[in-house]
Amino acid sequence: MSTEETFDIIVVGAGALGVASAFYLQKNNPDKKILLIDRLLAAGQANTAMSAAAVRNMFGSSTNQLLTDTSIKYFEHVQNDLKHELYFEKTGYLWLLSEEQYNSENAKVWMGRMKDSGIQFKVYTKDELKEMIPGLNVDFANDEEAELMNLKEVAYGLFGPDCGVLDPTRLVEHYLEEFKKVSHVKPRFGVNVEKLIVEAVPKLDLPGEPYVWQNKRVTGVKTNKGIFKAETIVLATGAWANELLDPIGIDSQTKTKKRQLFVIHAGEREGLRNLLYTKGFNDLGCIPFTILPSAGVYFRPQLQEKGFWIGCGDKFGRAYKYIMSDEEMVPETSYYENSMYPVLSKYFPDFKDTRATNMWAGGYCYSPDRIPFVYEDHGVIVVNGASGSGIMKADALGRIVDALYRGEEEAQLYGGKRINAKALGQKDRKVDLETAVI
Amino acid sequence: MSTEETFDIIVVGAGALGVASAFYLQKNNPDKKILLIDRLLAAGQANTAMSAAAVRNMFGSSTNQLLTDTSIKYFEHVQNDLKHELYFEKTGYLWLLSEEQYNSENAKVWMGRMKDSGIQFKVYTKDELKEMIPGLNVDFANDEEAELMNLKEVAYGLFGPDCGVLDPTRLVEHYLEEFKKVSHVKPRFGVNVEKLIVEAVPKLDLPGEPYVWQNKRVTGVKTNKGIFKAETIVLATGAWANELLDPIGIDSQTKTKKRQLFVIHAGEREGLRNLLYTKGFNDLGCIPFTILPSAGVYFRPQLQEKGFWIGCGDKFGRAYKYIMSDEEMVPETSYYENSMYPVLSKYFPDFKDTRATNMWAGGYCYSPDRIPFVYEDHGVIVVNGASGSGIMKADALGRIVDALYRGEEEAQLYGGKRINAKALGQKDRKVDLETAVI
Repeated sequence: MSTEETFDIIVVGAGALGVASAFYLQKNNPDKKILLIDRLLAAGQANTAMSAAAVRNMFGSSTNQLLTDTSIKYFEHVQNDLKHELYFEKTGYLWLLSEEQYNSENAKVWMGRMKDSGIQFKVYTKDELKEMIPGLNVDFANDEEAELMNLKEVAYGLFGPDCGVLDPTRLVEHYLEEFKKVSHVKPRFGVNVEKLIVEAVPKLDLPGEPYVWQNKRVTGVKTNKGIFKAETIVLATGAWANELLDPIGIDSQTKTKKRQLFVIHAGEREGLRNLLYTKGFNDLGCIPFTILPSAGVYFRPQLQEKGFWIGCGDKFGRAYKYIMSDEEMVPETSYYENSMYPVLSKYFPDFKDTRATNMWAGGYCYSPDRIPFVYEDHGVIVVNGASGSGIMKADALGRIVDALYRGEEEAQLYGGKRINAKALGQKDRKVDLETAVI
Repeated sequence: MSTEETFDIIVVGAGALGVASAFYLQKNNPDKKILLIDRLLAAGQANTAMSAAAVRNMFGSSTNQLLTDTSIKYFEHVQNDLKHELYFEKTGYLWLLSEEQYNSENAKVWMGRMKDSGIQFKVYTKDELKEMIPGLNVDFANDEEAELMNLKEVAYGLFGPDCGVLDPTRLVEHYLEEFKKVSHVKPRFGVNVEKLIVEAVPKLDLPGEPYVWQNKRVTGVKTNKGIFKAETIVLATGAWANELLDPIGIDSQTKTKKRQLFVIHAGEREGLRNLLYTKGFNDLGCIPFTILPSAGVYFRPQLQEKGFWIGCGDKFGRAYKYIMSDEEMVPETSYYENSMYPVLSKYFPDFKDTRATNMWAGGYCYSPDRIPFVYEDHGVIVVNGASGSGIMKADALGRIVDALYRGEEEAQLYGGKRINAKALGQKDRKVDLETAVI
């Protein structure tokens, strides 16, 4: 605990947002000494690794559209031009919607904004969907169970061809490798930040400093590996932000929620194989990432595993957590069996009697408006609240962090589009509302 | 724990917001069985009792102006017409401002909005203030200590004559007495709500219910005195809202912060007595509630005690708390000595060498925009986030809770002004920003 080192910037958290921020900061501030740290033993091993790792530009908020669309285009560039394999597969996203959902005001705003922003999408009718997707059940008439379960019949499909899935570990590796090429300081792992250090400026060396009448700011971090000081601390800790920010009086306005994924292998089951290899939506010849009309249940194809990852965006009734404890990160078998499976098997009876062969849990970091935060406050730049879409916004958010650090009015995103560097701030927030939350 | 009783409405929390809500709900829904409960042994004994209990209509947000101005007029009505003594004394509020503060954009918006809303205020110059207020120091020239402490010289005073102080216990008693006159159920104290009960609608009596595919809502509360069920739960628990709402997946968007008050008696000190009995601002012949230009330090006169209550609205550096624990509610002598006293004694040297004869601490409940929340979510009506101005908004907030319960589009406030019943909601919030936060 006696070591005390000084840097220009310390980036706390080597998840998707942390490594992207570190890279753009170092790239655009080549002389600065930037230390990247994470409490785990490698980058991207916390909630980044727990993600469904799907990426979509199909948002209802033009802010989220901009963040994702430019990030996804960057990921394509990384994979196609830089030849760094991200296993980015354009499976597309398919939202199965009920008649009522399709005709809702929300959906109209959503589709209208996508048109305005040039986000590609296509509408399929029930008959087209039934034709294309093996085993899709679009008829709940006379199904009393389905009625009891509040399940809505599929009437339309909203398909986004530029969405897909990728390997978040590979994405983190890309930013980390690029960061290492330009950085002066080796990233350090197994470094747990215990608290942010607030000091008076100037220090008067009085007992109990700082007092209310002193100017103060964050000047460093206290970790299990000693004290590190820096002019600027970038906090990219997602679900753990409150633990560090609350004690110094910054309200992150985010909370976490447990989310779980369950792996179902198609195995030798013909019905599930046919579903997995659904034709007509994409060049891969597979079913898109698919969201059901009811209960927030969704699945993504996993071609390497010849199976599906099943998830659920449950809302009221699932606890918010002040911070995400490791003990929370335990998936519940009964959750698949009682909550997700009954819904899934109504729409896709081929899932009948399936059991998960693998499962895991992680923490979403929610902002109240489901749009991320990036802001500077007393020496800390906070990037969080990406609400389960952090990976797909990582490139844009990393660039915004850097623009904010450099005092630029705007951040230039991949492809040349620009965003006000303070648009995602807590004060003078300039975002439009999200209507398409899973 | 075997008892289970059923009511129409349960109001949780008998602080200022709870009793006002209970009263207006019962008054306007005379047939409903309304149970008011509190974990303490009497009403208004938690943070309501810890308040500086000052009331002001001098807000920068027209929303806050409306909530306070109508509430204050109701308090006057209670005291003058209903003859229920609230010890409401119109001391006025005096904001001492530096040249820079007075000329800031914030102050311009603030004063402009007060003019627009018909909120009375008067501007005093430095010379006038010096003339009126015994012992006020307006000259920090050549005071190196003041410079080191970032203290700003007083240049102007912004005075609101319709502001003042009152006795929050008497206010709570007023609403409680009126509630008891019309209610069918006796309020119960010493009842601690351990959790909100969420149930499936309809219940299927399956193990582990409710599942994600079921409709669900809050149907009651589990307490140390048994289970109480109701169609609607009103949550007026201030600093304890997260503890009940997070587990069911409602993000209150509020956090608490410890605030402390220190009592300084004027005693035989001539300087302090002269200050306390400052003439010219009000009919009471006393110094107004006064806010210093620096460090958030303020004081209110306490005529019965012949002294002052000193407080401080410190911001960055003072921890937010997820919930306010009883252990937190301990005032720190060193806080007065090191943080507040040095500031206070620079502006009012007559406080030199004073020590607090009494002190206490309580929890502010902050919303991000410093404007309260009132909203309905899955059977719960939440009223909180009043951020240290709950008492002065209690009447308006109680009426809004009732309007929301009755499904009215607007709430009618005292004096006839109206506000959209959903204006203080989390969704479609219709408020304008607060610029005058202490």
